[in-house]
Amino acid sequence: MNKDIKLYLNRFKAGECTAEELLNVISSRSVESLGFAHVDHERASRQGFPEVIFCMNKTPKQVGELAATIAKNGHSVLATRASKEQFAAVKKKLHAAIFHEDAHVILFSAKKKSPVLKKHFALIITAGTSDIPVAKEAALTIESFGHRADTLFDVGVAGIHRLLRKTDILTKASVIIVAAGMEGALPSVVGGLVNAPVIAVPTSIGYGAGVGGYAALLGMLNSCSSNVTVVNIDNGFGAGFVTSTILNLLEKSSR
Amino acid sequence: MNKDIKLYLNRFKAGECTAEELLNVISSRSVESLGFAHVDHERASRQGFPEVIFCMNKTPKQVGELAATIAKNGHSVLATRASKEQFAAVKKKLHAAIFHEDAHVILFSAKKKSPVLKKHFALIITAGTSDIPVAKEAALTIESFGHRADTLFDVGVAGIHRLLRKTDILTKASVIIVAAGMEGALPSVVGGLVNAPVIAVPTSIGYGAGVGGYAALLGMLNSCSSNVTVVNIDNGFGAGFVTSTILNLLEKSSR
Amino acid sequence: MNKDIKLYLNRFKAGECTAEELLNVISSRSVESLGFAHVDHERASRQGFPEVIFCMNKTPKQVGELAATIAKNGHSVLATRASKEQFAAVKKKLHAAIFHEDAHVILFSAKKKSPVLKKHFALIITAGTSDIPVAKEAALTIESFGHRADTLFDVGVAGIHRLLRKTDILTKASVIIVAAGMEGALPSVVGGLVNAPVIAVPTSIGYGAGVGGYAALLGMLNSCSSNVTVVNIDNGFGAGFVTSTILNLLEKSSR
Amino acid sequence: MNKDIKLYLNRFKAGECTAEELLNVISSRSVESLGFAHVDHERASRQGFPEVIFCMNKTPKQVGELAATIAKNGHSVLATRASKEQFAAVKKKLHAAIFHEDAHVILFSAKKKSPVLKKHFALIITAGTSDIPVAKEAALTIESFGHRADTLFDVGVAGIHRLLRKTDILTKASVIIVAAGMEGALPSVVGGLVNAPVIAVPTSIGYGAGVGGYAALLGMLNSCSSNVTVVNIDNGFGAGFVTSTILNLLEKSSR
Amino acid sequence: MNKDIKLYLNRFKAGECTAEELLNVISSRSVESLGFAHVDHERASRQGFPEVIFCMNKTPKQVGELAATIAKNGHSVLATRASKEQFAAVKKKLHAAIFHEDAHVILFSAKKKSPVLKKHFALIITAGTSDIPVAKEAALTIESFGHRADTLFDVGVAGIHRLLRKTDILTKASVIIVAAGMEGALPSVVGGLVNAPVIAVPTSIGYGAGVGGYAALLGMLNSCSSNVTVVNIDNGFGAGFVTSTILNLLEKSSR
Amino acid sequence: MNKDIKLYLNRFKAGECTAEELLNVISSRSVESLGFAHVDHERASRQGFPEVIFCMNKTPKQVGELAATIAKNGHSVLATRASKEQFAAVKKKLHAAIFHEDAHVILFSAKKKSPVLKKHFALIITAGTSDIPVAKEAALTIESFGHRADTLFDVGVAGIHRLLRKTDILTKASVIIVAAGMEGALPSVVGGLVNAPVIAVPTSIGYGAGVGGYAALLGMLNSCSSNVTVVNIDNGFGAGFVTSTILNLLEKSSR
Amino acid sequence: MNKDIKLYLNRFKAGECTAEELLNVISSRSVESLGFAHVDHERASRQGFPEVIFCMNKTPKQVGELAATIAKNGHSVLATRASKEQFAAVKKKLHAAIFHEDAHVILFSAKKKSPVLKKHFALIITAGTSDIPVAKEAALTIESFGHRADTLFDVGVAGIHRLLRKTDILTKASVIIVAAGMEGALPSVVGGLVNAPVIAVPTSIGYGAGVGGYAALLGMLNSCSSNVTVVNIDNGFGAGFVTSTILNLLEKSSR
Amino acid sequence: MNKDIKLYLNRFKAGECTAEELLNVISSRSVESLGFAHVDHERASRQGFPEVIFCMNKTPKQVGELAATIAKNGHSVLATRASKEQFAAVKKKLHAAIFHEDAHVILFSAKKKSPVLKKHFALIITAGTSDIPVAKEAALTIESFGHRADTLFDVGVAGIHRLLRKTDILTKASVIIVAAGMEGALPSVVGGLVNAPVIAVPTSIGYGAGVGGYAALLGMLNSCSSNVTVVNIDNGFGAGFVTSTILNLLEKSSR
Repeated sequence: MNKDIKLYLNRFKAGECTAEELLNVISSRSVESLGFAHVDHERASRQGFPEVIFCMNKTPKQVGELAATIAKNGHSVLATRASKEQFAAVKKKLHAAIFHEDAHVILFSAKKKSPVLKKHFALIITAGTSDIPVAKEAALTIESFGHRADTLFDVGVAGIHRLLRKTDILTKASVIIVAAGMEGALPSVVGGLVNAPVIAVPTSIGYGAGVGGYAALLGMLNSCSSNVTVVNIDNGFGAGFVTSTILNLLEKSSR
Repeated sequence: MNKDIKLYLNRFKAGECTAEELLNVISSRSVESLGFAHVDHERASRQGFPEVIFCMNKTPKQVGELAATIAKNGHSVLATRASKEQFAAVKKKLHAAIFHEDAHVILFSAKKKSPVLKKHFALIITAGTSDIPVAKEAALTIESFGHRADTLFDVGVAGIHRLLRKTDILTKASVIIVAAGMEGALPSVVGGLVNAPVIAVPTSIGYGAGVGGYAALLGMLNSCSSNVTVVNIDNGFGAGFVTSTILNLLEKSSR
Repeated sequence: MNKDIKLYLNRFKAGECTAEELLNVISSRSVESLGFAHVDHERASRQGFPEVIFCMNKTPKQVGELAATIAKNGHSVLATRASKEQFAAVKKKLHAAIFHEDAHVILFSAKKKSPVLKKHFALIITAGTSDIPVAKEAALTIESFGHRADTLFDVGVAGIHRLLRKTDILTKASVIIVAAGMEGALPSVVGGLVNAPVIAVPTSIGYGAGVGGYAALLGMLNSCSSNVTVVNIDNGFGAGFVTSTILNLLEKSSR
Repeated sequence: MNKDIKLYLNRFKAGECTAEELLNVISSRSVESLGFAHVDHERASRQGFPEVIFCMNKTPKQVGELAATIAKNGHSVLATRASKEQFAAVKKKLHAAIFHEDAHVILFSAKKKSPVLKKHFALIITAGTSDIPVAKEAALTIESFGHRADTLFDVGVAGIHRLLRKTDILTKASVIIVAAGMEGALPSVVGGLVNAPVIAVPTSIGYGAGVGGYAALLGMLNSCSSNVTVVNIDNGFGAGFVTSTILNLLEKSSR
Repeated sequence: MNKDIKLYLNRFKAGECTAEELLNVISSRSVESLGFAHVDHERASRQGFPEVIFCMNKTPKQVGELAATIAKNGHSVLATRASKEQFAAVKKKLHAAIFHEDAHVILFSAKKKSPVLKKHFALIITAGTSDIPVAKEAALTIESFGHRADTLFDVGVAGIHRLLRKTDILTKASVIIVAAGMEGALPSVVGGLVNAPVIAVPTSIGYGAGVGGYAALLGMLNSCSSNVTVVNIDNGFGAGFVTSTILNLLEKSSR
Repeated sequence: MNKDIKLYLNRFKAGECTAEELLNVISSRSVESLGFAHVDHERASRQGFPEVIFCMNKTPKQVGELAATIAKNGHSVLATRASKEQFAAVKKKLHAAIFHEDAHVILFSAKKKSPVLKKHFALIITAGTSDIPVAKEAALTIESFGHRADTLFDVGVAGIHRLLRKTDILTKASVIIVAAGMEGALPSVVGGLVNAPVIAVPTSIGYGAGVGGYAALLGMLNSCSSNVTVVNIDNGFGAGFVTSTILNLLEKSSR
Repeated sequence: MNKDIKLYLNRFKAGECTAEELLNVISSRSVESLGFAHVDHERASRQGFPEVIFCMNKTPKQVGELAATIAKNGHSVLATRASKEQFAAVKKKLHAAIFHEDAHVILFSAKKKSPVLKKHFALIITAGTSDIPVAKEAALTIESFGHRADTLFDVGVAGIHRLLRKTDILTKASVIIVAAGMEGALPSVVGGLVNAPVIAVPTSIGYGAGVGGYAALLGMLNSCSSNVTVVNIDNGFGAGFVTSTILNLLEKSSR
Repeated sequence: MNKDIKLYLNRFKAGECTAEELLNVISSRSVESLGFAHVDHERASRQGFPEVIFCMNKTPKQVGELAATIAKNGHSVLATRASKEQFAAVKKKLHAAIFHEDAHVILFSAKKKSPVLKKHFALIITAGTSDIPVAKEAALTIESFGHRADTLFDVGVAGIHRLLRKTDILTKASVIIVAAGMEGALPSVVGGLVNAPVIAVPTSIGYGAGVGGYAALLGMLNSCSSNVTVVNIDNGFGAGFVTSTILNLLEKSSR
């Protein structure tokens, strides 16, 4: 039970607050309204990570204010799909913010990150060179959670031996993210080689009948390897997030 | 390094086998050909579970022979999307096989299952009554791996308080599977309430513009909750399988 | 029966006009041709609001002339999907016209608006910050009809408690508009909490498999809440218009 | 505030119940679990109508039990998309239940319906003869709410004068439902003739490129008449439900 | 039989040419190669109109050369989907060429057009103002064939009386072209009012689920009026061409 | 002007009827209500052919009553997509009705057909043997209008010389209907050989990515021959109907 | 030049036939009309194989007559997608015809097949057991051309070592056909291992978002291996046919 | 067996290397890592051509480095979908590189090309002028392999005689590539005239319902000519590559 609720239940019992006040506290303790947004300050405790800013379709001013509001509560800030303009607006409010341009990610750390010494790690694989930005978005997300993310780029199925000579690292990773465009076949092959969960990220790399990533998405959903799940096209952040929830469980479990 | 390879490397060194024989051993040790199928006997050691039989589009005779071949090697048998006819063919070969008709699953256990005493468990939630068969396919898969699967049925978003009064069990589960048809909104709501990974299974329940499960699939891929990943429509088995790989990791890690 | 028709029926009876003239009057009394458009001056009496200008694919000159023609008849002007160029053309003809840039709406009021003191009001809810322009288009439309439109922004399902703490205002509104992109789950949750009609507006906010708003559209059409109807993607105007027709009925009924 | 909550708040204040018991009451008062379903007994008070049974993909036994559980609480039962077998199962539990076979609707009234004498009514229009079952599903839903539903069948746009000679009744209705398949043009024409809200129901009548109702659905979403909203293909029930919520408001307002 | 063939058959019979030469004449008499194109000079006699230049995806230089090659043979030139740059290239070669910018059409007449005095005419109707460019492409095509094309703009179904007061001209036209975007309902209504063939042109006017003209296309293909046929989205030229073939037949037949 | 209107205008002038009666006559003279349908008796005079019964999704009883109602007014009956059961219901009412089973067409002639001696004729071509039923539906429709319909079956593009040796009849036909499934290429080739209008009918013949006729439909809409228009998939009736309207014009014009 | 043409050219030169007769011979020598079909007897010489009967949507009687007509000319008969009923009709006319039921293929050999001793062969690979019928259709087609077709079944990418241990035969085959459903990844992997052309056949094996074979089709079209081409879903015959044309070229070339 | 493997097997036998070293050699001999890419140096020996650079979505720097790495090993460089910027980056590293701008192809030859004197050749046909860039990409690919590629442009089906007069060259080619947009009918017609394999390339030329090349793609997959296979939309490179693998086989076979 939340501390505030405990406090108000006691106060209510003691006649120090009304029933209305009690019920109000239950619902309002965690949300801050900015007019254009309701920031969910309790998400960090509920989900293990503060609210993440999805920058697409937001004005630089909105991104800047959201970042400041989150940081103000002592939380780290992770903003995805960010533009240079949006970063500039954040930078003004949070001078220590960093922009990873190729991955379109803004990072601001509330506290100094201690060196990563954890037991488990994720491996992020791409089929081609063009899938790297999506992979980096995933890697930065995982590192924001304080986990380790190794990478292996350009090992697609047209030259399968490039992957097979790396089975060593494949079998050591606790979770594997595979980003691939075109026919999206790599997660199935990887899935067949390991016993870890595989998070497949279709990328919008391709052309003609594969444009937009739909061929890769459909292929991954129909994977003949049963340990494969799928996130939205180009959703490196989502793959990194769900991977982090698994690594969180593992760290907690192994302590 | 595999024992056979070690043996043959030594034999080769000792001049007791040719180079061809050595290379042949490396590739052939684990596959048995039935003509219509190549059974992968090594999958149990590679993936933590023997090959699963996907019954759709296979003749009863083929299913029967596959089941017998897998069982012959001391493995348990899990067959999904099975019909009565296919079960009859399996039953002839493996008398102890059991048919879960509503989930279309055949099970045959190679050894007596010890009672489940593990620390972690999965929770399987459905939005409606019609999604239950898919949920059961997931549950049976997880139990085949020796894990615990709790269930919570018919708590869809049109009456959100049915779900909210169960937040207790939601937050205790290590992994949550959510099966939903129609608009497929439930995984987003569940995802926002917990910090565990959520495996979303779109079901083909619906009609009109939602027929076939595409509305639910698209909705889940676009979930605004970042801890949600997706498997194919009606793929309860896949959701159960990937959940089991996570639970496996947790059990190993917590030992 | 229309006055003109009555007059001409009498004149015809009296032999003061020919049959052709009579029939002509019946069909031509309400339409004015501009060459590129036929302005429907009778729409205000037939539908409770004058013809609205949908600016997309029209030249600034055409928009300007249409606005002037409508205003000339003593009607207010509402123009949606307007650009700065189109507004400039309207401004030249109607100096009091106002441009709501974020909602892409031009407004010109034929008469001074009396303060809104009506009994019923609409509530416009968005799932995210990016859905606000669509919501504003709806709000301006409703206010053009002389009704009250309250708003509640960024209360999407990933943090369901942001919505639940507002059930008070939800249950007081006569009609609720819900604008949401991505998986479009919010109308279902809102629909389950109230007994008012819910007009769902899918927005084109999203990416990957959700790009263009199709995931949200399909989700809303398949809503498990039965009091939900749907308008076209990003069609804030349509949602506002149909909401206004309901509020019109309520005002008339409650008088 | 709900009575139970008040009671328990008082009991809690008086030390007669624990904090856990209090919170439990808040969440559990309204839901009854049948194992395969959670019946939402509070929906009648929350939404003005008890939970409706959507029969598709449910076993006759499940439908029967759900119907009995709802009726047991003194509520009327409305079950849509029902088969003869499902009706038989309901009939066993509720002898007074009636089956409207052409509309696939089961009805059981908890109390004698008083004659309909209300001021407002809905008009249900179909484009063709084949759209009638969908229209009847809507009509029965509206009548279940105690409202009046008039009908006008087979007045599609290929013979527009069939509709135009009925403008009298069109303009008197408070809400109009239009069910149409093929190109789905009728709602646009009707919408242009009236100032009431128009609920468009695409039907799956058609063939070739229109099969499944998608042509009609897309047409209606793109209606050039702004007072048109849309429900899912063949969703007569949904159209009837949302219409009833509007009529409820009107009745309340005019009292 | 073609004159050249007759000539060569006679020459062959007389031993004045070889069999190869004869066969060669049969196949080569009518095509001129420009390297990047094979101009079909016989199309005028075979189809009643010389080859038309579809400018999209062609370089200005290619368009200019094609126009010159066609004109060189005494034929008129009609070029559709033309840009200003392409027109400039044509203008250099054919000084009398004219550019209809709103319809993106280049015209060059080989001979002075005699005044149109023919008995039959086409009527081109648009649903909205935005459909006019497509209608103009159709009109210019018909006039290139020497026929008369009347127009009636902005008479869509949301204000059906705008169309109905024009039934006079509707019933006089020999062929009617209807260009409409959004839900594409107008051809069905027009088709029901006349006994002439109706050529429906879906336009790409619309947004959301109607973007690209697919809603209008599907609607027109599913028209409940049986005298409606359809051409590709925005294909005003095609509608004008097929209309001209019908008017050609009528003129020939009535002579 | 219609006779009835003239009469009533005179009567009204003479004071022999009220204004209401006059307006009523204008709208009601031509429609007969059967409850489930509104029969449009004036269509014969307005469109040159009485209302056609589209049998799909109608009960045999409804088809029988519609046929009887149309015949009662001295009109011929044409019913498409008819089943044996529907024919039986028609036969009971109209003993002279004939069933063309392969084309699923019921015909009943109001009067003896005089031998066809008209100048113009249609040619109906199919790409394959499987497209013949659609072609026959078209032929029967054209013959119902009293026109001549010649046929040429199985001359698809894989053996183009089968078509080329028939150019003689191709160039003589006034209108050509081409029914083709699979890639739907035949209308383009035919269109390039003639100067007549070509009505393309995509058929649902095909499999894999072409199933349902969509490949043929898209191909025909994108035909590079400009004299091609398209009707819905399998819509032989529509093709025949629009062809008849053209032949009607030609016959009238050549008299 | 064809013999008949030579003969008639000589006869024409000698005045022994008219110009019309000459031209007629050119076009008519090779086609036989059955009313419902035009059999192309010259295809064997033009394409190296007589016309193949695609049985889908043909009546048994039509299939029987087509088979007899082809055989009458001394050609072998290959009929695909055949049912038992269609085979019975063929068997009556051609007693030596054989039915391969699992591949739905009817074969009748005009002459005794000499043993296959050719240098080149095709390899047909399937991803799963369910893809075997499609592979057999391909194999029978290739053998009908007199070529050798080896097979390798159930070596899909989830257990990639099953394929890799067969690289020997993979690299020896001149052409490789790969039939795969679900994600259709196998052709990419095979393509990367060999330098032969790979013909990919998507199969309709799969479910959910992969139903109908579209996921496999899209995946194969987007293959990252450049030596992959694709035929229609389940089109084993087409894959076998095009493979045979390549083997024909190789045999001719190596003679 | 590969030389390196032989060497290490001997060294291992002689005790000169460890088992680990031996296995490592097997997997690592052929791949070079650039960080962002793994260059597959063995592809030339495995597939008859070195790795090809697909430039889309790669930075100029990446393309430049890849080109240099491939050339460094004595291989020729072929880069497709290249921009001017990417060419500039390659040019800096490889001065002899050439840019074919219309085909977006960069070529760098490792050695002087000997004149082409081979027996077999490919023919590349386009339906229209706009399809030429795709055809050129195919031609350059084939010439990179040292084969001959003839071309025939703008011979689409709307003027079928343009193609028919070229049957001579059609029947001489060993492989035919047909690039066509719009309805994509040309491969079917070509396929019916020859006995060679036909590689169909749908192009994205078209508009309306054909935009993006889907109509052409679907048409080609459904071709009624059985010797047609298909590559992705606009994939001239793929068509050229697979054609080269066939020509390679023919050259080898005919030696």
